[in-house]
Amino acid sequence: MAQDIPQKETEYPDGSVRLRNPHIQLMDQDILYHLALGSESHDLVSMFGDVKFVCLGGTPKRMEQFAFSIMDEIGHKLPAGTTLLDISRYSYRYSMYKVGPVLAISHGMGIPSVGILLHEVIKLMYHARVRDPIFFRIGTCGGIGIEGGTVVISEDAVDGLLRPTLELPVLGKLLQRPAKLDKKLARELKSLASAEDPYDTVTGRTMCTYDFYEGQGRLDGAFCDYTEADKMHYMTQIHKAGVVNIEMESLSFAALTHHAGIKAAVVCVTLMDRLKNDQVLAPKEVLDEWQSRPQILVSRYIKRYLSMKGRLSLDGPGGSMCVKSPRRFKLVQQESETYD
Amino acid sequence: MAQDIPQKETEYPDGSVRLRNPHIQLMDQDILYHLALGSESHDLVSMFGDVKFVCLGGTPKRMEQFAFSIMDEIGHKLPAGTTLLDISRYSYRYSMYKVGPVLAISHGMGIPSVGILLHEVIKLMYHARVRDPIFFRIGTCGGIGIEGGTVVISEDAVDGLLRPTLELPVLGKLLQRPAKLDKKLARELKSLASAEDPYDTVTGRTMCTYDFYEGQGRLDGAFCDYTEADKMHYMTQIHKAGVVNIEMESLSFAALTHHAGIKAAVVCVTLMDRLKNDQVLAPKEVLDEWQSRPQILVSRYIKRYLSMKGRLSLDGPGGSMCVKSPRRFKLVQQESETYD
Repeated sequence: MAQDIPQKETEYPDGSVRLRNPHIQLMDQDILYHLALGSESHDLVSMFGDVKFVCLGGTPKRMEQFAFSIMDEIGHKLPAGTTLLDISRYSYRYSMYKVGPVLAISHGMGIPSVGILLHEVIKLMYHARVRDPIFFRIGTCGGIGIEGGTVVISEDAVDGLLRPTLELPVLGKLLQRPAKLDKKLARELKSLASAEDPYDTVTGRTMCTYDFYEGQGRLDGAFCDYTEADKMHYMTQIHKAGVVNIEMESLSFAALTHHAGIKAAVVCVTLMDRLKNDQVLAPKEVLDEWQSRPQILVSRYIKRYLSMKGRLSLDGPGGSMCVKSPRRFKLVQQESETYD
Repeated sequence: MAQDIPQKETEYPDGSVRLRNPHIQLMDQDILYHLALGSESHDLVSMFGDVKFVCLGGTPKRMEQFAFSIMDEIGHKLPAGTTLLDISRYSYRYSMYKVGPVLAISHGMGIPSVGILLHEVIKLMYHARVRDPIFFRIGTCGGIGIEGGTVVISEDAVDGLLRPTLELPVLGKLLQRPAKLDKKLARELKSLASAEDPYDTVTGRTMCTYDFYEGQGRLDGAFCDYTEADKMHYMTQIHKAGVVNIEMESLSFAALTHHAGIKAAVVCVTLMDRLKNDQVLAPKEVLDEWQSRPQILVSRYIKRYLSMKGRLSLDGPGGSMCVKSPRRFKLVQQESETYD
């Protein structure tokens, strides 16, 4: 189960993303409904061919902020009189911003929401002929045995039963996909934590749940059939099993990127230590600063990558909004507005 | 497993919602993070005490539209110079609109997203002392063996393995909750379908999945390991098992409302017949009209209920934005901005 996937299944000889779905090539057009983009309506190679980094996070607002901050960091310039625009605004679901080689997209909450997005973003990489993209999830989480404000780089992801696999019913059978993250990428990110940082950056196992309240052993949901002692016993148990944080997307993020042969990392900041409490107690200014920490680490990685390539912004075909077919363009926008 | 829950566990003698969580009453305050509301920051009885109907749907935009349309339908009047405002705008996650006795809230995509919302909305009902609320999910779905544009009232919800239960790991053990909907409410809704409606309204079993692509047997995801024949075989099989539509939230919606002793119904419109294709082919104007159909049925129910009570808008305490503690009010807004 945990064997690696042969490279030739997931990429073409030039490193661009190959889809593990023979049906897509046979389709007249591929509409990415939840992104409000389409393979025959939009010139996806022109728009996205220069992408190298795909950064996902929970809310539209956080990803918009990240887009503006990475623009500063990599010195990306927009033409005078322009600003960033949400590329997927017609979908009313995800928000997508593009800053040169960086895509910043909101994924909503939970495995199904991030899963739909990943299917469509992986197809977007294929249609845009992006070579060797790197995906990051930048998020918040609860910590286990570590102080609030700590940055956690996930080594692997496990479900609520400590299984390192995404389990999904497909055509009536349970499909299992290993939730593996790129170990080298995690080490590289860890090496970019600075001794000057006024907080810790750690690596460890991430638990991913389908629920925020009972699924994470919280005492403050609408229902609770266990005691505080039961909760603490469980938290201590998973802590011993190497779990350092809990969130709600890493399992799908790790499993789908791994299955697609895409390098990926999960970097989250802890908002509290769940061995101490369930609630967020830090004031607003502190929380805002905490939230910037995973973004700072990922920014360092992106900056280092681009400067090693000898330039901060990548050259390449992409960037402008290119309409292939005005009729289909309009249709895709309209259909995306409806789709659930 | 399928036994009913004793009424005294889920409601007080006056019919108001009783929480099945002994911890909440012991808490200093209960912050509904994802709604940007709190039990000690906001006067929830004054704000929400008059709520009778809670309507959930996927996107903020659709629920805003529904809020304005139900306002017309029930003849609810706002003070001159005012308009509806998203009550949960500081959470950046869900949008919530209130129109007299009706709450309209967006739930995002998938079981975890609707689950977080339900935990907090059920707690909101408790804090606001709402009596016998009725919950509706108004959505879109894929149909099985029925034409696009058909309205489906769910009789029950099953998972991708046809099991009528929500399964969730809690403290390391698999918890199972029956996904039951109110049969009488479903029948009442069905009786409100009119022979004049230029579309069918049917009842049947709803399948709820954790994924939109492989989880629903689609051929157009980033991955696909099965053939079109495999897909059609499966679709035919679940059709024979009584499944008439597939979506992504009903299982959690049914299980959590049932566990809370709250009457609930799921009303969705089909966007295509999955026995024929995977894609949405209808043009924008048609889709817009289709989407209004579940809203129209639920509006008929709400109007009938209110007119049977002798008035279109319910009397009651609630409605205005009441701050209990300005300091805590500010804190809850700020903390909600951060929480994942």
